[in-house]
Amino acid sequence: MFINEAVRINSANHLEIGGCDCVDLAKEFGTPLYVMDEGLIRKNCRIFRNAIDEYLNGNGLVLYASKAFSSMAMYRILHQEGLGIDVVSGGELYTALKAGFPMERVYFHGNNKTVSELAMAIDNNVGRIVVDNMQELCNINKIAAGKNKTVSVSFRIKPGVEAHTYEFCKTGQTDSKFGIDLEDAFEIFEEASLMKNIRITGIHCHIGSQILSLEPYKLATETMLEFAVLLKDKLGVEIQELNVGGGFGIKYVSEDVQIDFHKYIEAISETVKSFCSQNGIKVPFILLEPGRSIVGAAGITLYTVGNIKEIKGIRKYVSVDGGMTDNPRYALYGAKYDGAVANRADAPKVEKVTIAGKCCESGDLIGKDMLMPKIEVGDILAIFATGAYNYSMSSNYNRIPRPAVVLARDGKARVIVKREDYNDIIRNDIIPGDL
Amino acid sequence: MFINEAVRINSANHLEIGGCDCVDLAKEFGTPLYVMDEGLIRKNCRIFRNAIDEYLNGNGLVLYASKAFSSMAMYRILHQEGLGIDVVSGGELYTALKAGFPMERVYFHGNNKTVSELAMAIDNNVGRIVVDNMQELCNINKIAAGKNKTVSVSFRIKPGVEAHTYEFCKTGQTDSKFGIDLEDAFEIFEEASLMKNIRITGIHCHIGSQILSLEPYKLATETMLEFAVLLKDKLGVEIQELNVGGGFGIKYVSEDVQIDFHKYIEAISETVKSFCSQNGIKVPFILLEPGRSIVGAAGITLYTVGNIKEIKGIRKYVSVDGGMTDNPRYALYGAKYDGAVANRADAPKVEKVTIAGKCCESGDLIGKDMLMPKIEVGDILAIFATGAYNYSMSSNYNRIPRPAVVLARDGKARVIVKREDYNDIIRNDIIPGDL
Repeated sequence: MFINEAVRINSANHLEIGGCDCVDLAKEFGTPLYVMDEGLIRKNCRIFRNAIDEYLNGNGLVLYASKAFSSMAMYRILHQEGLGIDVVSGGELYTALKAGFPMERVYFHGNNKTVSELAMAIDNNVGRIVVDNMQELCNINKIAAGKNKTVSVSFRIKPGVEAHTYEFCKTGQTDSKFGIDLEDAFEIFEEASLMKNIRITGIHCHIGSQILSLEPYKLATETMLEFAVLLKDKLGVEIQELNVGGGFGIKYVSEDVQIDFHKYIEAISETVKSFCSQNGIKVPFILLEPGRSIVGAAGITLYTVGNIKEIKGIRKYVSVDGGMTDNPRYALYGAKYDGAVANRADAPKVEKVTIAGKCCESGDLIGKDMLMPKIEVGDILAIFATGAYNYSMSSNYNRIPRPAVVLARDGKARVIVKREDYNDIIRNDIIPGDL
Repeated sequence: MFINEAVRINSANHLEIGGCDCVDLAKEFGTPLYVMDEGLIRKNCRIFRNAIDEYLNGNGLVLYASKAFSSMAMYRILHQEGLGIDVVSGGELYTALKAGFPMERVYFHGNNKTVSELAMAIDNNVGRIVVDNMQELCNINKIAAGKNKTVSVSFRIKPGVEAHTYEFCKTGQTDSKFGIDLEDAFEIFEEASLMKNIRITGIHCHIGSQILSLEPYKLATETMLEFAVLLKDKLGVEIQELNVGGGFGIKYVSEDVQIDFHKYIEAISETVKSFCSQNGIKVPFILLEPGRSIVGAAGITLYTVGNIKEIKGIRKYVSVDGGMTDNPRYALYGAKYDGAVANRADAPKVEKVTIAGKCCESGDLIGKDMLMPKIEVGDILAIFATGAYNYSMSSNYNRIPRPAVVLARDGKARVIVKREDYNDIIRNDIIPGDL
């Protein structure tokens, strides 16, 4: 009945996730509340891991993209499921460290890693640092030399393939703050190969987000492999790892045609195998970086409806007790969501409503003109597919405390991120003595 | 030399704010760093307060809009300057309480105040609750009855005037989640006048943000006063307070033609006085809600440049150690900023660069194609006019800790919001025992 895989209707006609009644969850933990389905997170991890086994004989590793949702409990699950992770900041790295995540399976990304972040990564022996630019390469080599270490690096390359939700293009140059242009790449590899404390392991690309098509991945993979051949021919540098990034799309609304996740891996693998056999090169170790596709659909957000306002002939606003503070994706991208009334889960969708948050900003909406069941004040509203880029992008705008995150499995819900309270809000505030 | 009033060049050819050398500030407190000029904040408070004295014989009150920048130290300054505040959440109210701000000068706004927030406001005897809708009015009356209190309320009305930075329009209906349509307003006043625990004091409107024109304020003021006359005629309800909201624009970039703040008050006052004398009604107590105009230009953000990337023939990216986490306004609105190189403050602007943040998101920019001086790695970059809606909208995306806020005056800089560290990032993380 729902487009979202994480939810079903239970015998009380309530929405259920991970075996937990959403109305009970709202009562026990309060709203707004993020709820994540542990079973679906694990299932998605296994789809990717199994695809690596099936299509690549295990010659690869799935790196979960932390930016989608990072927390200590999440890293614990990923560790148990045998995945690696990518991190893009000292904060994500610190979280992984504190969760006991194995550092050799950590890939450190980012277009502007600071010197202290690089030192932290090197001190903790992260698996790879994915070099974004020449300045960073020099910084890594210098820090590594000071610590008498050799650092394994790969390089973020711009393959000139840029994909968005429904379309993609191949351009000569990619206008992006990330990575190294193909034509500048030889220079950086040449430099790197001369650096005493640098070990070159691979190349990486990332072509976009929420991509619902296979073609751009095939094209990017081919471009990257062509580059690898040139690297070998020109510089004698042999690439052992190819990281094709992430961006695999999920189903937010009924219009989204989701591709089974394993098909992305199948397409990438076929491209790799066929290219390598045609060009007589060894199949590299393949890395993937799914983020949204692992946690996106596994998360929902529960809200309580505070008031309903009909502007005759124009629009009906339903105000909930959260908003752009817990989900800024409408404000940022005009993102679309689907949802349900958790306490009348089988209610048919009968009218278009605009779900508004409680922030003091007119653009603070969860969704505009969403087809929803009849909603009443006091209803518990569930918004689907909020597991990625919701908690991770949340803010304290209007000094609103951030919601808790609970993890649901087999009817048990456990808090994995505690709800903020008003003391959290002011805990870093200081009134100077002379004020 | 700069479009920003808070900064000047000192004898070391460094940028200076509140008598503090920005290069020294970056060294002492680290970057990214928010710096606010206490003198300019106080000056702006006084411009508004003095305008109330001059144009309205003191018959009014300036309410600072907390959402622009809320912190305990800020409320202390506002208290000292004799202003009131508006708050839009329990979190802002709590901050004001902890700062010892006088509750009778607190106005509580918002389109979806929760029952517990309303109870908190009533318990603490806030000056006014600005009622957004019928549901809320009923909630207030019920809570107040339970506490044997009478609550002074005003009502947010949609005057049908909507203004944006450079243009405005008058529509019959306003498509907004906020407030009460003019045509529905009589009903809510009628209900309110029958409620035992409600005292009607005034009406409120808010017509937009970053408005650089006087006309929309005159029109909105007139519309609100016409409504007040109708209210008196139809229901016998006499309005004592008229709150005309805020939205007064500031100069972000050279194209912005800023209007002296007192001129807004002058225009509003003239409209009020002329309307009241023509219609034989008493001039109401006037409330204003400046937010951005008090703190916006008083704040700057300092960053350290990490790397510079030229994409030949396309764009030059300068990556800094902050980004959409500390300033999401480019990502949200395509907002424009001006800036300088703090360590070579007199350097002429010679080239267009795109200032990128360090977040793992291609839209993470501070500004696109900004005309800037020649920038080098290691430079301290100052972005101007970041005092409003930067710290307040900041996030921990990518688990990046939020910067400190320092307040500068007469060469002394004091921390008013402590920089977050990695322990702040994980402090609410929990790994359940069964994971």
